[in-house]
Amino acid sequence: MPNPTAAMLVIGDEILSGRTKDSNTNHLACKLTEAGIDLREARVVADETDEIIASVRALSDKYDHVFTSGGIGPTHDDITADAIGAAFGAHVDVREDARALLAAHYERSGLEFNAARMRMARIPEGARLIDNPVSTAPGFTIENVHVMAGVPKVFHAMVESVLATLTGGDPLLSETLRVNMGEGDIAGPLGALAEAHPELSFGSYPFMRDGVHGSNVVMRGTDAAQLVAVKTELASTLGVPVE
Amino acid sequence: MPNPTAAMLVIGDEILSGRTKDSNTNHLACKLTEAGIDLREARVVADETDEIIASVRALSDKYDHVFTSGGIGPTHDDITADAIGAAFGAHVDVREDARALLAAHYERSGLEFNAARMRMARIPEGARLIDNPVSTAPGFTIENVHVMAGVPKVFHAMVESVLATLTGGDPLLSETLRVNMGEGDIAGPLGALAEAHPELSFGSYPFMRDGVHGSNVVMRGTDAAQLVAVKTELASTLGVPVE
Repeated sequence: MPNPTAAMLVIGDEILSGRTKDSNTNHLACKLTEAGIDLREARVVADETDEIIASVRALSDKYDHVFTSGGIGPTHDDITADAIGAAFGAHVDVREDARALLAAHYERSGLEFNAARMRMARIPEGARLIDNPVSTAPGFTIENVHVMAGVPKVFHAMVESVLATLTGGDPLLSETLRVNMGEGDIAGPLGALAEAHPELSFGSYPFMRDGVHGSNVVMRGTDAAQLVAVKTELASTLGVPVE
Repeated sequence: MPNPTAAMLVIGDEILSGRTKDSNTNHLACKLTEAGIDLREARVVADETDEIIASVRALSDKYDHVFTSGGIGPTHDDITADAIGAAFGAHVDVREDARALLAAHYERSGLEFNAARMRMARIPEGARLIDNPVSTAPGFTIENVHVMAGVPKVFHAMVESVLATLTGGDPLLSETLRVNMGEGDIAGPLGALAEAHPELSFGSYPFMRDGVHGSNVVMRGTDAAQLVAVKTELASTLGVPVE
């Protein structure tokens, strides 16, 4: 059975202006690869309701899972919950379970549980809450969309919470052969190998160190022994050592 | 006149598997912000012809400019030029101007100009070459799509080459007010200010340092004096110093 598929949707003007570097996509990519879920696409969109709605609908239709990051805080530009609710025609309001979590949190911390913070209890009807062990304000899952915070520490914790509930396929494994040859010198044998093994994925990534052109050839698949065999075969064809 | 709009399209399995962190989107975002071009969306797609074609068509229709990164090297997984040609119905083959550039480069460097390296001279009919002062193999512009390399050093150089040819709007400027208050405590006044100044964009980004919750409030616009005035107004409302 093929692995489940997924997409990432990053929501935030601060990424598009260059002010903030998105690190959540790479974190999710690594976690999904381990879990045997194929990340097929990632998008970054602005804090604009129509853009969020259009993207989440397109990605939700196309992939098994959609993970979102950003826009669920207390300020006026945090519009993700309402936009996702609108995308699925789900009513969005302060929900008692989320409100209770936040009330207890602010009670403990001595901070005022004001109207702005109450916004973080706005959850679409029918959604399941995603646990946030870092700062309490929950994410939520509606249909196949997992809505999470943008702050990396919180995003990481929520990804753990969600992945514990999902069933993946076989983890995607990789082997890397590092050669001191330019991509142009290995392209022929590499292409032939890729054609002979359509079940594996082959990538080559050039680097330059101390004036020498080199390439990392990465082979990906789910069978560890096969990956080692193919790596050995390529090394032998290129006349280079395996390590 | 509103600023021109743009989208970024990153092409590469290695980003989606988590092996490589994309830094090109952030680089482009910063450069476009300086140039007065609004980056509105970014996407990452796999090395798959159909995905590249669908994305480039959608983004090219929607935005004034599309910048792509990745997939123009010599190996079997470098399919960007052919996919972009297909997206616009343009014939793709080895082009004499690109071939001559590469032939001279490999002549100088003493490397073999083999069939794999010749692939890098495959350029869609009607495209303009993008200068690559780092490693010679050119990018190209077809319609409103600028096709560039994935290797960051080369991507950066190509972005410079392209931006020199584009006309932007007013550079987007920003002011940041750093406050030792949580987002929930500033959300009210910030929302009111955002409503009073629809021509500006306001974002707030929480942080925690030494156990203290803080927020960076970022105001963006094109009028430097107005941004300082609005920052001063917000600081006064919150009862905090401007610096």
